[in-house]
Amino acid sequence: MKFQIIDGGVTSPEGFVSSGISCGLKGENLKDLALIKSTKLCNSAGVYTKNKVKGAPLLVTKKHLKNKSAQAIIANSGNANTCTGEEGIKNAEQMCEYAAKELGIESDNVLVASTGIIGFKLNIGAIKNAVPELVKRLDKQGYNDASKAIMTTDTVQKTMALKLEISGKTATIGIMAKGSGMIHPNMGTMLSFITTDINISSELLEKALKESVRISYNRVSVDGDTSTNDMVLILANGLAGNPVIEEENDDYKVFLEALKKLNIKIAKMIAKDGEGATKLIECRVLNVPDEKEAEILGKSVICSSLVKTAFFGCNANWGRILDAVGYSGVDFDINKLQVSMESSKGNVLVFKDGEPVSFSNDKATDILSEDEVSIILNFNSGSCSVCCWGCDLTYDYIKINGSYMS
Amino acid sequence: MKFQIIDGGVTSPEGFVSSGISCGLKGENLKDLALIKSTKLCNSAGVYTKNKVKGAPLLVTKKHLKNKSAQAIIANSGNANTCTGEEGIKNAEQMCEYAAKELGIESDNVLVASTGIIGFKLNIGAIKNAVPELVKRLDKQGYNDASKAIMTTDTVQKTMALKLEISGKTATIGIMAKGSGMIHPNMGTMLSFITTDINISSELLEKALKESVRISYNRVSVDGDTSTNDMVLILANGLAGNPVIEEENDDYKVFLEALKKLNIKIAKMIAKDGEGATKLIECRVLNVPDEKEAEILGKSVICSSLVKTAFFGCNANWGRILDAVGYSGVDFDINKLQVSMESSKGNVLVFKDGEPVSFSNDKATDILSEDEVSIILNFNSGSCSVCCWGCDLTYDYIKINGSYMS
Repeated sequence: MKFQIIDGGVTSPEGFVSSGISCGLKGENLKDLALIKSTKLCNSAGVYTKNKVKGAPLLVTKKHLKNKSAQAIIANSGNANTCTGEEGIKNAEQMCEYAAKELGIESDNVLVASTGIIGFKLNIGAIKNAVPELVKRLDKQGYNDASKAIMTTDTVQKTMALKLEISGKTATIGIMAKGSGMIHPNMGTMLSFITTDINISSELLEKALKESVRISYNRVSVDGDTSTNDMVLILANGLAGNPVIEEENDDYKVFLEALKKLNIKIAKMIAKDGEGATKLIECRVLNVPDEKEAEILGKSVICSSLVKTAFFGCNANWGRILDAVGYSGVDFDINKLQVSMESSKGNVLVFKDGEPVSFSNDKATDILSEDEVSIILNFNSGSCSVCCWGCDLTYDYIKINGSYMS
Repeated sequence: MKFQIIDGGVTSPEGFVSSGISCGLKGENLKDLALIKSTKLCNSAGVYTKNKVKGAPLLVTKKHLKNKSAQAIIANSGNANTCTGEEGIKNAEQMCEYAAKELGIESDNVLVASTGIIGFKLNIGAIKNAVPELVKRLDKQGYNDASKAIMTTDTVQKTMALKLEISGKTATIGIMAKGSGMIHPNMGTMLSFITTDINISSELLEKALKESVRISYNRVSVDGDTSTNDMVLILANGLAGNPVIEEENDDYKVFLEALKKLNIKIAKMIAKDGEGATKLIECRVLNVPDEKEAEILGKSVICSSLVKTAFFGCNANWGRILDAVGYSGVDFDINKLQVSMESSKGNVLVFKDGEPVSFSNDKATDILSEDEVSIILNFNSGSCSVCCWGCDLTYDYIKINGSYMS
């Protein structure tokens, strides 16, 4: 094996357990409180939303991560605990304290996350009452319950694990994530918690996390709205027993590659599970002089409401794609640009040499009717290529977000 | 009178006639070809889309406006004549030539605009055949037909006129515009043609146009998509007989104020008539240190899909407004910010001193059920205030744009 995707999640690496229960924030016995715990203190890193309005849990987690170590993550869905003033900060601190006390660890070593509606005070009493049960349920099989407990409008669970070999030792990375609405490039537009038993310094752990986030979650958009709360956290407890990774050697590269692979898979799951979405739209931007510009071009296309609605209608309206490329602000030579669309059903070229290419509408519609489709923009003018991911814009997005207090 | 809004349109100023007919581009006998003509050569100015992909008519109009004078505008709907290669440029030139020949004027003095789907070759033969009839129909009452002929998914005509007094002379400004989808700040995200009989130098005409566009059309967004084709053109033939405006004197200020007033009215009509929209959303950003930052804040809110869907549902979900304020990138003190919502049914304060304000949901829903609603963001930290306009995001937006080849 180089990498092997396995059944599992955040509890797949050595030394991690987790749990997920209902404490009443979401009602109807829906799971809404999750806990992840390592048997030993972990090197740890986080990447956070760039929204200037930051949720209280994010501020508390950032503070607790100053020493780059942590042992547990507590997270709730059903309430974002954001724009809730001083009381919100206190409540986020208390979530850590309740968990720490029950786990017998330091409160500073607990990280906290919340997701749900903004602007409502957290029912901290409900969480306090539920923490003993949450801790009691901690289990090797708990990854499944935990990943359910952080879902909001998600329609599919996002949990995954991967085995890899590092200097002859077998190590594991596990992940659970949520994200469906308010998803837009600029880190960290969702919750994603990553666990691993790899032995790595906290500096390189952070570096690898940032690099993998940059080319995965930061290239996804569901609706252009960057959330106030979201973050990616990683805990590494070192139990795999590999020689500690302290420099950017081959072991680091293997780990980074594995992390990228997992995060891209999760990022694509998030895009595909965008609120109301019927399909994943991948935009492959090829052969541009500059990687940053390639990313701007790709994001402009996947964020376009008109491209998104066209794809919902399986409509090969490439004019809207060129329009979005044009307003991205990036200079390019339209005469060198080739545009095509692709899915498992085939490929159709629609624009070349500055002019439309005649194509079969029936064939194009058939290609776009798949649940994973690609837009390929070949600028033929450089050596940088990137992928960005989004989804279509549908009646159900309106239904989900137009109803009261979703 | 200072300003008086009157019935009419582009033919209301002295010396202008216009017409609008069907030439077959849109089918079903829908009007799709418009002409505006002045009896004498006009000082003239234009503001154009910033999209890097520019429609062929825009390139031709820019060329013809190099000498800052023009006498006629020909425009079609049903086809944008964009991404159509060299042939597209030739076709746009030919539209000017056909009109010029029939009008007995220079082709360089005709401006051209097209709106509709991107990427299809223009049926120039249909236009050529229709031009004689188009010219024959030129009439003082033709503003109505002309404004119909530039509509695409617009559901209401956008035509207006205003009388004003300049140095004791009565002058008139007329306007017709279209715009419903692919509307986003960054000039000129629609077609807007303005006529006036005011006597003004082409330099000051251009200056006034740019200034009025900046605070009207550039503060409107329907769907975040900046079009390839759109422009605002103004023709001034001087027939009002006022002393020529050659410096920024009181006459200039009166003219500028009138132009702003008209363009803001049209901008709001465009936002309210956004594809599928049920309501106009105004975002008033008050008391910010910097005007540019105020505009960024306002645009961020009116462009948010989550705010737009919430307002469709008459849902006072102010957390989404704060989220959009937060990801705008502008720094602010959340503890000074006051957020309220308003319509003709009243006003409700929802956020103050960094915390939610308790309010009646029934009252808020009632306020938001009107077809013109405002979000008021008072940052209490400076002296600049701006308005931006948008609309809600609805099932009908998906219906209009998800169907084949709209």
